[in-house]
Amino acid sequence: MRSSQFFMPTLRENPSEAQIVSHRLMLRAGMVRQASSGIYSWLPLGFKVLKKIEQIVREEQDRAGCQELLMPTIQSADLWRESGRYDDYGKEMLRITDRHDREMLYGPTNEELITEIFRNSAKSYRDVPKMLYHIQWKFRDEVRPRFGVMRGREFLMKDAYSFDLDAAGARRAYNKMFVSYLRTFARMGLQAIPMAADTGPIGGDLSHEFIILADTGESAVFCDRSFIERDVLSLDIDYDSDLEPLVKQWTTDYAATDEKHDAARFGALPKDRQVEARGIEVGHIFYFGTKYSEPLKAQVQTQDGQTISVHMGSYGIGVSRLVGAIIEASHDDKGIVWPESVAPFKVGLVNLKAGDAATTPMADDLYARLTRAGVEVLYDDRDVRAGEKFAQMDLIGLPYQVVIGPRGAAKGEVEFKTRKTGAVEEISAEAALNKLASRQGA
Amino acid sequence: MRSSQFFMPTLRENPSEAQIVSHRLMLRAGMVRQASSGIYSWLPLGFKVLKKIEQIVREEQDRAGCQELLMPTIQSADLWRESGRYDDYGKEMLRITDRHDREMLYGPTNEELITEIFRNSAKSYRDVPKMLYHIQWKFRDEVRPRFGVMRGREFLMKDAYSFDLDAAGARRAYNKMFVSYLRTFARMGLQAIPMAADTGPIGGDLSHEFIILADTGESAVFCDRSFIERDVLSLDIDYDSDLEPLVKQWTTDYAATDEKHDAARFGALPKDRQVEARGIEVGHIFYFGTKYSEPLKAQVQTQDGQTISVHMGSYGIGVSRLVGAIIEASHDDKGIVWPESVAPFKVGLVNLKAGDAATTPMADDLYARLTRAGVEVLYDDRDVRAGEKFAQMDLIGLPYQVVIGPRGAAKGEVEFKTRKTGAVEEISAEAALNKLASRQGA
Repeated sequence: MRSSQFFMPTLRENPSEAQIVSHRLMLRAGMVRQASSGIYSWLPLGFKVLKKIEQIVREEQDRAGCQELLMPTIQSADLWRESGRYDDYGKEMLRITDRHDREMLYGPTNEELITEIFRNSAKSYRDVPKMLYHIQWKFRDEVRPRFGVMRGREFLMKDAYSFDLDAAGARRAYNKMFVSYLRTFARMGLQAIPMAADTGPIGGDLSHEFIILADTGESAVFCDRSFIERDVLSLDIDYDSDLEPLVKQWTTDYAATDEKHDAARFGALPKDRQVEARGIEVGHIFYFGTKYSEPLKAQVQTQDGQTISVHMGSYGIGVSRLVGAIIEASHDDKGIVWPESVAPFKVGLVNLKAGDAATTPMADDLYARLTRAGVEVLYDDRDVRAGEKFAQMDLIGLPYQVVIGPRGAAKGEVEFKTRKTGAVEEISAEAALNKLASRQGA
Repeated sequence: MRSSQFFMPTLRENPSEAQIVSHRLMLRAGMVRQASSGIYSWLPLGFKVLKKIEQIVREEQDRAGCQELLMPTIQSADLWRESGRYDDYGKEMLRITDRHDREMLYGPTNEELITEIFRNSAKSYRDVPKMLYHIQWKFRDEVRPRFGVMRGREFLMKDAYSFDLDAAGARRAYNKMFVSYLRTFARMGLQAIPMAADTGPIGGDLSHEFIILADTGESAVFCDRSFIERDVLSLDIDYDSDLEPLVKQWTTDYAATDEKHDAARFGALPKDRQVEARGIEVGHIFYFGTKYSEPLKAQVQTQDGQTISVHMGSYGIGVSRLVGAIIEASHDDKGIVWPESVAPFKVGLVNLKAGDAATTPMADDLYARLTRAGVEVLYDDRDVRAGEKFAQMDLIGLPYQVVIGPRGAAKGEVEFKTRKTGAVEEISAEAALNKLASRQGA
């Protein structure tokens, strides 16, 4: 994509309404624009990141054996009356009346609807176990939306639901999701720490929040240093095997949010293993047994002819929130530092002197070759000051920058910069191409 | 995917609420379930088709130089007051009041919001031309929703918007979209015919509907037979070239919907070139000049310092509607006949005798090899009657079926069936694999 054509309205100044760094950087980089309070439009740069995150979430859900479907945003109030949550939910639920005066709502979550779908088709033990998920926009009418996409009103969430014959089966589903969450966040460059959690309005017996550490996190968290050094992607995970030992490994050491904090247990750790930090919730999983299947009558026949209510769990990931959370965890004073797996482009190619007889053909040629090699490039071909180009590239945080200036062009060389470390090498255009093409899919 | 695990609740009986064939077949094949009147959940089989159609639309928008972003579903009423459409829209607009008593709405289209986004960032002639699109759920509160996803209330639409300095520039954008629509529908196996159209609530001077022919179409259409024989995918299209001659080729011969029909002109055609049929609208494009940019003040400075309102167009494709429309255009009395490009799986692999010592290892092995080769397979490994398996495979309409029975297995052979023609060959498993793997991406 050429910068001269790309719709990326960056801002020079810090917008005054943004209190936290991710909100500030997303506005400045032209990733999002507020449409109404707590409601955002995703401009092309932000949309690309959102899609990459969504795709990682999807791949890891699929890998764990979860099947994707898509439920609508607008739901019937009657269904929520069956579970008793229509009245419980209060003012955070956006309530709507249609032209025939039927009461509807903009779904804040989907336990009721998925349970209805399941009960209308499942009849026997052969229809379970089943794990189903969707990635859909939700609405929560927050009283004071803030922090940009981190706490918006309209937000994109992945929510999965499991259906099993009994508590033991539900535990297996819970473990699959637990492990798949570790993998999902690790692929985005995040070290997510599972912490025992309250169940809130979803209800249930067993629940973990997945928390990433960031100075600007919304809540205080306390954990054993061991969590920070673990490498989950190196594990070879077979989702059909017994995952209990792995889950145990990740739930034995101390980790708790403010609400669940046990100062005595934490204090008993050696001082150098005590981590006190701020955390951002990026995922939340629940096992709630028959809380929804009983009132909604989601039942199946067992092999010996009994009728039982299925055991269920639900599993959420805040997809749009993750865009902000990753920035909170990965930025510096110049701007965003994207992990490669979610970067909107892999490399920014900068022609320092647009129209120059040496730099322009060299930059055009490298752009064409990178594109042919399947590398995603943002090519700054604009006729603006070098300083402005550098500042914008650092702001939007692509993993690599390739800069072509008159001095280098004379020698056939480019400057190859790694955004995260700031390291710069002078290498041939050919070598830059090879570096970028071979890192593809890394 | 193994059928024993796949969530595909098919129905044996025709659902009584479904009046048209696509609605009936989508319910029977377990592609969708109604959540509320005119609002559907997309089950895994239907979701796969929806995603394939969405991806073709996306690729062709990108190819034409259109950039993807994503606007929210919920919009502010105030913005629609600026264009004057808040009152015009009537009861089809789903109006919402939030917890702070602010008037909101569920967007039925996005001219206002995209114009606001553009006006807040564009300043000069350098910021145009620009084409932006999104693929987002919309809501129209139809008084009598019917025909399943063909006329639902919550529906997925691709809407693109163009911004240009003048009418000539806008015409170039219009032509790009015109041609990209021909390509988009052709890739889905549809012969879409552009017909001059009324502009309705969008307004404007120039408009075409893209209509596909189907017996169950909603409106009568009249066209020259020439349209039915054209092959658009064989054209090598350069979107930067002058597309006017190509657009002219597609708008010269007679084609009109009921509303715009000119019986005299149609009657003047030779009898054998007169096609009278039913049609389904799958796309609609508009040029409306400064209808929105003037009231909403979307202005830029020209090269000689004048301030002008930009010329705009908008361009819609009914993504969820297309799922139904393709079925209307492609089915037989046994079920759906998917074009390969949008089929949920490429092939259905049937083990006629689950558990059999000869058929099962052969089917398992072919399933594994097809999967490794990147072929999307639905593997019917269930222990049910052969007749039920055949009926279900025909119903869901995958392009190819590979059937492994005891007699064939003894000879190392499978039955390879092409759903569209019904042609069956007895070939080796190896040959079936080669046929399917080589057709990949065709």
